[in-house]
Amino acid sequence: MAKAEYSVLGTSIPRMGGVERVAGAGIYGIDLVLPDAVRGGVLRSQYAHATIKSIDTSEAESLPGVYAVVTAEDAPDVKYGRTSNDRYMLARGKVRYMGDPVAAVAADSEATLKKALKKIKVEYEPLPVVLDAEAAMKADAPALHEEIPLPANLPKDTRVKNVCGYSTLHVGDPDRAMAEADLVVEETYETKMVHPQYLEPRIAATRHEADGRLTVWVNAQAPFGVRSEVSKLLKIPISGIRVLVTEIGGGFGGKATGTHSSAGLEPICALLAIKAKKPVMMVLDKAEETVSTTVRAPVKVWIQTGVNKDGTIVARKAKLIFDAGAYSGFGALAGSRCTQMLAGWYRTPNAHVDGYIVYTNKQVCGPVRGPGGPQAAFPVESHMDSIAAKLGMDPVEFRLKNIPKPGERIAGVPKLRDVSLGETIRVAAEKIGWGKVKLEKNQGVGIATGSWIEGSGPGGGAVVKINEDGTAAVLIGKVDYGTAPRFGIPMIVAEELGIPTDDVTVLNVDTDASPWDAGTVGSRSTLVAGNAARLAAIDARNQLLRMAAKQLEASSDDLEIKDRQIRVKGTPVKALALAAVATAAHNEIGEVIGRGYFDSKAVEAEEKEKGSSPPFTSHAAIVEVDPDTGNVKILKYVAVHDVGFVIHPQAVEGQIEGATAMSIGQALCEQVLFDDKGKTLNPTFVDYLMPTWNMIPKIETVLIKGYPGAGPYGTKGAGEIGCVPPPAAIANAICNAVGVRLTSLPLSPENVLRAIREQKGVEP
Amino acid sequence: MAKAEYSVLGTSIPRMGGVERVAGAGIYGIDLVLPDAVRGGVLRSQYAHATIKSIDTSEAESLPGVYAVVTAEDAPDVKYGRTSNDRYMLARGKVRYMGDPVAAVAADSEATLKKALKKIKVEYEPLPVVLDAEAAMKADAPALHEEIPLPANLPKDTRVKNVCGYSTLHVGDPDRAMAEADLVVEETYETKMVHPQYLEPRIAATRHEADGRLTVWVNAQAPFGVRSEVSKLLKIPISGIRVLVTEIGGGFGGKATGTHSSAGLEPICALLAIKAKKPVMMVLDKAEETVSTTVRAPVKVWIQTGVNKDGTIVARKAKLIFDAGAYSGFGALAGSRCTQMLAGWYRTPNAHVDGYIVYTNKQVCGPVRGPGGPQAAFPVESHMDSIAAKLGMDPVEFRLKNIPKPGERIAGVPKLRDVSLGETIRVAAEKIGWGKVKLEKNQGVGIATGSWIEGSGPGGGAVVKINEDGTAAVLIGKVDYGTAPRFGIPMIVAEELGIPTDDVTVLNVDTDASPWDAGTVGSRSTLVAGNAARLAAIDARNQLLRMAAKQLEASSDDLEIKDRQIRVKGTPVKALALAAVATAAHNEIGEVIGRGYFDSKAVEAEEKEKGSSPPFTSHAAIVEVDPDTGNVKILKYVAVHDVGFVIHPQAVEGQIEGATAMSIGQALCEQVLFDDKGKTLNPTFVDYLMPTWNMIPKIETVLIKGYPGAGPYGTKGAGEIGCVPPPAAIANAICNAVGVRLTSLPLSPENVLRAIREQKGVEP
Repeated sequence: MAKAEYSVLGTSIPRMGGVERVAGAGIYGIDLVLPDAVRGGVLRSQYAHATIKSIDTSEAESLPGVYAVVTAEDAPDVKYGRTSNDRYMLARGKVRYMGDPVAAVAADSEATLKKALKKIKVEYEPLPVVLDAEAAMKADAPALHEEIPLPANLPKDTRVKNVCGYSTLHVGDPDRAMAEADLVVEETYETKMVHPQYLEPRIAATRHEADGRLTVWVNAQAPFGVRSEVSKLLKIPISGIRVLVTEIGGGFGGKATGTHSSAGLEPICALLAIKAKKPVMMVLDKAEETVSTTVRAPVKVWIQTGVNKDGTIVARKAKLIFDAGAYSGFGALAGSRCTQMLAGWYRTPNAHVDGYIVYTNKQVCGPVRGPGGPQAAFPVESHMDSIAAKLGMDPVEFRLKNIPKPGERIAGVPKLRDVSLGETIRVAAEKIGWGKVKLEKNQGVGIATGSWIEGSGPGGGAVVKINEDGTAAVLIGKVDYGTAPRFGIPMIVAEELGIPTDDVTVLNVDTDASPWDAGTVGSRSTLVAGNAARLAAIDARNQLLRMAAKQLEASSDDLEIKDRQIRVKGTPVKALALAAVATAAHNEIGEVIGRGYFDSKAVEAEEKEKGSSPPFTSHAAIVEVDPDTGNVKILKYVAVHDVGFVIHPQAVEGQIEGATAMSIGQALCEQVLFDDKGKTLNPTFVDYLMPTWNMIPKIETVLIKGYPGAGPYGTKGAGEIGCVPPPAAIANAICNAVGVRLTSLPLSPENVLRAIREQKGVEP
Repeated sequence: MAKAEYSVLGTSIPRMGGVERVAGAGIYGIDLVLPDAVRGGVLRSQYAHATIKSIDTSEAESLPGVYAVVTAEDAPDVKYGRTSNDRYMLARGKVRYMGDPVAAVAADSEATLKKALKKIKVEYEPLPVVLDAEAAMKADAPALHEEIPLPANLPKDTRVKNVCGYSTLHVGDPDRAMAEADLVVEETYETKMVHPQYLEPRIAATRHEADGRLTVWVNAQAPFGVRSEVSKLLKIPISGIRVLVTEIGGGFGGKATGTHSSAGLEPICALLAIKAKKPVMMVLDKAEETVSTTVRAPVKVWIQTGVNKDGTIVARKAKLIFDAGAYSGFGALAGSRCTQMLAGWYRTPNAHVDGYIVYTNKQVCGPVRGPGGPQAAFPVESHMDSIAAKLGMDPVEFRLKNIPKPGERIAGVPKLRDVSLGETIRVAAEKIGWGKVKLEKNQGVGIATGSWIEGSGPGGGAVVKINEDGTAAVLIGKVDYGTAPRFGIPMIVAEELGIPTDDVTVLNVDTDASPWDAGTVGSRSTLVAGNAARLAAIDARNQLLRMAAKQLEASSDDLEIKDRQIRVKGTPVKALALAAVATAAHNEIGEVIGRGYFDSKAVEAEEKEKGSSPPFTSHAAIVEVDPDTGNVKILKYVAVHDVGFVIHPQAVEGQIEGATAMSIGQALCEQVLFDDKGKTLNPTFVDYLMPTWNMIPKIETVLIKGYPGAGPYGTKGAGEIGCVPPPAAIANAICNAVGVRLTSLPLSPENVLRAIREQKGVEP
């Protein structure tokens, strides 16, 4: 849509509160000061798998300066988890990964805390450890959760172990189609565990208020999830808990605490605060953050595709082994999304995919930016190039040949309304100079596409209050961590109320005041809070216009709000100051309070009928491979996206660049490494290799016109999809450069070099 | 209304958060801890009237540990005030009472602060001081506000000075009626200045947030008023200010800061915080509190009434001189209410009252519990006894003779719908044993009545959020200081939602989140917030019932919420847990958000048409007077009230007992004393005599059935009216005991003794 239609939307205004972030003045988790607070900390298992024979806290408790020591015995016997309740806030009887919380301490200082944690005597009986998901499925593997039954939807005859989730997809007659295909291509792929690696460590602080209520401070993405988790695990009614949010220094899904098996710090902190009868503050250090919090799960994929000579895809079969870690956590959800995506986002009339989500003695899988996305797109889009090669077809041509049409289905999208996939491919090919650009020796070009299933999810509300001077205050449930609450939301409210964005304030979440929300996850901030805030602003506007109509002796339908004035359309002389109307409200209803809901169910129903327009993307890269070192340098990178209507171009580009850079990290170097006992070998930034600017190219982001999404004014989620194509785009470029097909991440120098040498028949 | 109709309403449940108040654990103003905050303090004028020739802050500024020194020069040149803008946040050019703020300091400690305040050199040129309002009206009196014109509504030929407000009332033909009356009685009365004397000192704390917004903490009754005052005086948009409220240790109107000329601490604190670039906290000590904050104004009244032999009142004439203090403040409002009430709440077909609100060099008049009420009722109801005596009529009989009828008007009430005045008199007479009780020598019985003009005023809104476990969170703009927010509001919401009161939380005011409100003043908490919260709860209930209706395959009209269940009326087996419906909302609209408004204008219009039912009261007392010391002991005290429907009997009785005790204090002993230079002689609890329990009798409170008011379920305001009758009831009892009519408060031993001696012709 043309910016001209709007006064605020479509412009890249400065981010609300951006200055103090840059100035370092924002109150982040660790900046929080609670008067009279003591320090809390967690004792974590040093075994990846063991039985707890006994825990002796007496010595720790007797230490001067120790206010409380807690174990599972101090907490209600309640399990939690998103897909299945398989986890305790503090381990009971057993530990299942090296980092499992066993006990916790509240003490007067960091020093006393560390001393006390050391003095807690835990007697373990070690159990065999299984770190590989495929191995964990075997009959002879150690069982992590004896008491948890296999997934109910698992076919009866399946003989597997440690499977906590099963996801499957079946379309048409894949067996027959595969048998009749002109060509069948079969490959296996693998991705590794990566950590979201936000820079700010997680904190939790709790004060047990005198009236019996708990106040919990978090730097988490889902404060209402924290509230429900604390409520469930400590058996306190929701009304007994208030959660407040600090500024958040990055999360990428990793801080979506409480929405699933998580770091689970807050219930422990609350338990300590209650027992210590003092406010308690907990701060994780980097190493503890890495080993105890949630990660992007590693996967193994077997993928098989049948095509006809002309390049038409006729069948797809795939199998996924998804490593959930020690607890089901978010694994089943990310795993099922990954399963869906393995059927691809091309026309695939016949398909069968099996996804097994498996327990291992490693830390737990959580939602990380585009959960399951890169793990599916790396196999699918590398595989597309392999097929094209075998067909002797150009990869771009082959992809364009299989673009689905409106009305058709792709995995996760029952009915397509619009399909911009082809356009993103054409634009990406053009921008990268596909078939034109002159490539030197060891240079190659690659392309990969992606989509993101926004799917259905929770709804949310918004409240907009009009101050007596015509400025506005907004309540939404989405926390701000560089996303919509400080970009899109104030712009939307300003647009609908005809005031400058500076006149709008958005309260960061206070669960006592803010509308409930599922958390700032799933690229849904603008979809949920944006739609709700827009309707709340319109509701407020209509109330204001009705009030003004009397004084202006006009019908409210003939009125508009522009430049802080309520005017008769076309007759701007007949106008009232917005402030005057807002002030007059004091003696009537007090203040105009607008309310709006994003009704997720209603949108779902509409999309079911009319179809939906998912976001599509194509990334293209030119790389140069050093055949002697295996080092990969990205020379040029293009990211083409259809994200529907763009409210704040800079913010959207920032999201896409951030997601792309994050995914390039997974593609080229990132990986959490374990020894055979399940000990994390690289928990800090010293030893966990993240991409630095010398590895990240200038990312040329192109937002094509595309089609309207379900968001306000037609926006689509843009925070995660940028993570989907990079690994495959780079792998395809490497293959184009040096002719080797890498099927395992990361595309690190050693792996690339090994592949080159294997290809040459040289001993690796 | 019978309690039976309701499950929660009408019961005296424990007050929300009452326990921690009693345990002293609530966070009151002075308990507030702001990390890194410095201490702020005010330099106040030591002259009651003077020109400021110069202010030298250089020495104070150079003192180590001083972060900021501010004078009027540091603030925008903006005046404030409720009726007329006649006041600066810091004095400019002139000081008008001994306590006028001249400069302020922010320093690292209380000691440095005191030292710095001493080092500010202010050069004054003293001006003549006028402390008596009648004297201030004379031509030769010093002018306090040369630049402020006389009130526009003042009759042209009136030759007065220093008058900041004029209020008048005229009905029928009082001159003629007075001339034709069988008997005309004329008297003069006087009341003194009293201070509300809440126990907790006032605080203000401000932090200038990194994003440019100001956060202001107050223990004030009107946080939105504080927000608008800071906004106006510092020229910051409303959206740039957030006000948060601590627990409040009493206010009685004295802490209604910001709704009018007030202690005005917050703008000074904000100015200091901005200049100091540090959070600033200010706490007043008791003496500073007494001299610098707002008080109940002293009045002089001339009152004349014409009656016929049969005791019918035919005419009333009165003149009021109302002492507003150095600035108009709330004076004109309290004065006009006092003027209205001087016409009485009996049938008075012909009346004329003139009220002059006058500047003097004393501290400023504010709203104190029933502003203007006791000052009017003491003359009116003493006068009623004087007339009865002259008529040789029984005071009760005389009052009953003049009860207005439904449809008639009384001052402040254009049209009466119901009149319970007579019933309160009859019940009070019966309870005190009127005409029956055997009185010893020097014992006497007295009665006095009262009404309270609730009048029209601002409206307000409420928001009710339904948590996933069926508990509820409420947002209202009324602060809690022992009033509705912790009593009536949760009960109303619980009643409408069919849940226990414990399931309801009410957020104390956060101006970023709470609906705007005029302040917890005017006995309007339940009227405004109660009506709004009720409608918000009903709105939420209706949304929940619509959701449940689908699942229960019933019409939502046939559903009810009882015991945390949504049931088909009459078929309780067909039921859903409220929690289940509330949780299901997550995937639809997120959460049910109910909204309700109290539309003040609409209620006003309805009352104008159908008439209104004001609260009426009669108090009766039996006293014993010691003729040798003049000491008055109250032997028995009865307070009979029609407050409409009673939501929480104990809370209402508590309000009435508190108001009565407060008024007994004004009646018997309280008074702010000044020397001839305008210096307060008794600023502390050591020298300001307040009643102790040996002076306060057991107050027998009787709530008669009465008539429904405009509040939810028919409640009427009950927080202030108890202050109206006591002084007259006691004065009448004294007169009945020893035959002397005291026309001036307090009814202290020395005043009573003097009156007795004068009567006996003994030299006083």
